[in-house]
Amino acid sequence: MSISNRSRRTESSHVEAVAGNGLLNRRALLGRGAVLAGAVSAAPLGALTGAAAELLTEAPLTEAPWSLEPGAVIEPYQRPSRYEKDVVRTVSNPSGQPTAAGARTPHHLVNGTITPNGLHFVVVYGGVPDIDPGKHRLVIHGLVKRPLVFTLEALARYPMMTRVTFLECGGNGAPLFSPQPLQANLQALHGLASCAEWTGVKLSTLFDEAGIDPKAKWFIAEGADAPHLTRSVPLKKAWDDALIALYQNGERLMPANGYPMRLLLPGYEGNMNVKYLRRIKLVEEPAMSFWESKVYTQILPSGKAYQFYLLQEVKSFITQPSPGVTLKEPGLYEISGIAYSGAGRISKVMVSADGGQSWGEAVLQEPVLSKAFTRFRMPWRWSGGAAILQSRAWDKAGNAQPTRAQFVAQRGELKAVPPVGAVLNQHCNVVTSWGVDSAGEVKHVYA
Amino acid sequence: MSISNRSRRTESSHVEAVAGNGLLNRRALLGRGAVLAGAVSAAPLGALTGAAAELLTEAPLTEAPWSLEPGAVIEPYQRPSRYEKDVVRTVSNPSGQPTAAGARTPHHLVNGTITPNGLHFVVVYGGVPDIDPGKHRLVIHGLVKRPLVFTLEALARYPMMTRVTFLECGGNGAPLFSPQPLQANLQALHGLASCAEWTGVKLSTLFDEAGIDPKAKWFIAEGADAPHLTRSVPLKKAWDDALIALYQNGERLMPANGYPMRLLLPGYEGNMNVKYLRRIKLVEEPAMSFWESKVYTQILPSGKAYQFYLLQEVKSFITQPSPGVTLKEPGLYEISGIAYSGAGRISKVMVSADGGQSWGEAVLQEPVLSKAFTRFRMPWRWSGGAAILQSRAWDKAGNAQPTRAQFVAQRGELKAVPPVGAVLNQHCNVVTSWGVDSAGEVKHVYA
Repeated sequence: MSISNRSRRTESSHVEAVAGNGLLNRRALLGRGAVLAGAVSAAPLGALTGAAAELLTEAPLTEAPWSLEPGAVIEPYQRPSRYEKDVVRTVSNPSGQPTAAGARTPHHLVNGTITPNGLHFVVVYGGVPDIDPGKHRLVIHGLVKRPLVFTLEALARYPMMTRVTFLECGGNGAPLFSPQPLQANLQALHGLASCAEWTGVKLSTLFDEAGIDPKAKWFIAEGADAPHLTRSVPLKKAWDDALIALYQNGERLMPANGYPMRLLLPGYEGNMNVKYLRRIKLVEEPAMSFWESKVYTQILPSGKAYQFYLLQEVKSFITQPSPGVTLKEPGLYEISGIAYSGAGRISKVMVSADGGQSWGEAVLQEPVLSKAFTRFRMPWRWSGGAAILQSRAWDKAGNAQPTRAQFVAQRGELKAVPPVGAVLNQHCNVVTSWGVDSAGEVKHVYA
Repeated sequence: MSISNRSRRTESSHVEAVAGNGLLNRRALLGRGAVLAGAVSAAPLGALTGAAAELLTEAPLTEAPWSLEPGAVIEPYQRPSRYEKDVVRTVSNPSGQPTAAGARTPHHLVNGTITPNGLHFVVVYGGVPDIDPGKHRLVIHGLVKRPLVFTLEALARYPMMTRVTFLECGGNGAPLFSPQPLQANLQALHGLASCAEWTGVKLSTLFDEAGIDPKAKWFIAEGADAPHLTRSVPLKKAWDDALIALYQNGERLMPANGYPMRLLLPGYEGNMNVKYLRRIKLVEEPAMSFWESKVYTQILPSGKAYQFYLLQEVKSFITQPSPGVTLKEPGLYEISGIAYSGAGRISKVMVSADGGQSWGEAVLQEPVLSKAFTRFRMPWRWSGGAAILQSRAWDKAGNAQPTRAQFVAQRGELKAVPPVGAVLNQHCNVVTSWGVDSAGEVKHVYA
């Protein structure tokens, strides 16, 4: 099989520019399939999308080695192809020093909205505990009528619910506080966010059974790991949508995602979703634990600190293309990315290819779920010249992702360039920009 | 920490029976949280759910080994806990004999609606090929204006879409053709169905570019594996929702699920979703391949055969409890399962605890997506006596899952009990029944 030189194709009149520097109308494209059904296309879609396909000029068949001999036997628990060995999380602190460690999702190499369990991000403060689920207990006590203890087997008998939600570390995107754009890839910049389908028991069900004292206004959640990670949560979250999560994308939680059970607080700062959950205490006032009074507290330019800044704010970033990629030739590409908000559903994502001078509305992949990753897509014709790609998201609650100018004015930036991967500050949801140069190389820029 | 004897609790008046033998009103339960918000419950939810919780009578804290020492370092690609080593697929033909092989999803051990990639079912006819994605090509030819060839890199530039859909082998549930209920667990009976989020390029986009000759009515899809598995698909499916799938739950397809690309035909018989896809030929008539003329052809009691019986019909089964489980004590449990239909969305699932004498409507987990697993749930109070648990699903197209009497009348049953796991016949979507005896043991029964 050989591949011919690319054939010349002319642009269809159906394709309309929606913004500057090559952004195209996806809606026109999506509507055409039905019109063409069963008929020869007079104006082939290839005019829009076909920059990538090659005309076939020889026999369509070749017999590769895998087409000529039997393959391998099936494994009881399957794993990705050996050709995907580089699609892994980057791990900080791989030698297990007595400090925090993290693993970042490779958003530039995955697609869709679900993060597979193997690649879900993780932050741990005392390594990954090896918990025997048969010996693990969850206790609910404090300002309750009936202090209760639950085995995993007991929890399995309660009504469960399933929902998709993202989790994001408060420190995700922290490198963007730097005064100069750090030259790092998307995984290093925004890899501490992931999205999964979680199943478990509503915390309200268990609180209802324990009987909450009206004096209680907060609950303190504590993990069974060595640091006994502890966070305080306003009681109202339990009546809203808090879950004791037992399953992650169908199977039991991954060990570093909280096995055998974790608190799930959809939309709240990742660290509050306490893993290896062993205790919930109903109290009148928050614990002021190390994690809430120091680690995950926001420092403002005034020197004041936001504490209990619960929600992960509306945010988006472009995953394809992104730094590390070089576009090989001018032509048609898909710009794709993810958007999410701790306040609810994404309502709109706008994309720019000219650094924010003009914007076009991206298509959102249905279903758009509350507090979950939403995939957005837009076709783009790269002219071969310089471009700056940006995405900006809005949520149904009316929040807009801040531009860099807005974000720096409110939150400040550091005075010097920090090392790549350093956690500089918290809750960075600024618009992220990818510059494309005339060689097709994609780099992190500020715009 | 010790656990007290169970406290006596009386049943809340809010809890209503909705059908015989202990089926309870889940809607009443779900509505109570908001009412109780922030207040002490006068009639604790524990009255309904609390059979499983224990009152705490001693100090709430114990220090297990994992609470006293640092845990393990993070792996770049994480896997389930060692305590979950039995949550795996059962594999037929583990020695790689030159025949078919399969791996079944353990539905009794998972929850939610997404099947994690490690546990997605598989059927292969020539083992699992080890395909180099850089050398793999997809060809579209036959009755087209422009025969095309695509690399994986080329496909990555096309507009993509993401959707959740189930896949089911035509032979799933085949043991239920047996005249006696085979004593096997859910994994053996219905494990050849799974559900994932898939991302790829719409086949219509590529067909549009190739330019389809009006004479074409079918397309033949062929795999790159050694048997070159080949199936014929009506052309209309391409204009409807066919996809060239590149990602499965966010990451590249698993090797045995079709890496590096597969045809995805939502709702159609699993075998038609050709894996390791290397060629699509547009034709006037179907190929009458081995798989469509023999293997996946339905034999009716009359001796006639249904060929090209495309859709996987509306179906449901209860996953918890299911055979292999023994209920330890009378009390409250959740009955949970999955329902799906190749024709579209599930509209309703009814549950019975008395072998079909009375039925109550289960709660469907939102969002209910077309051609995807839908999780259903219903609370149940087991009296300690005999029970027969059943579920029955309906889809939005108006199809009802057949009762055993209806199914046998239409499709027949075998004359003798076949070996467990044998593929006896195709497209079995009959209502499945679990018997519970007075010792709490759950077994497969006919009712």
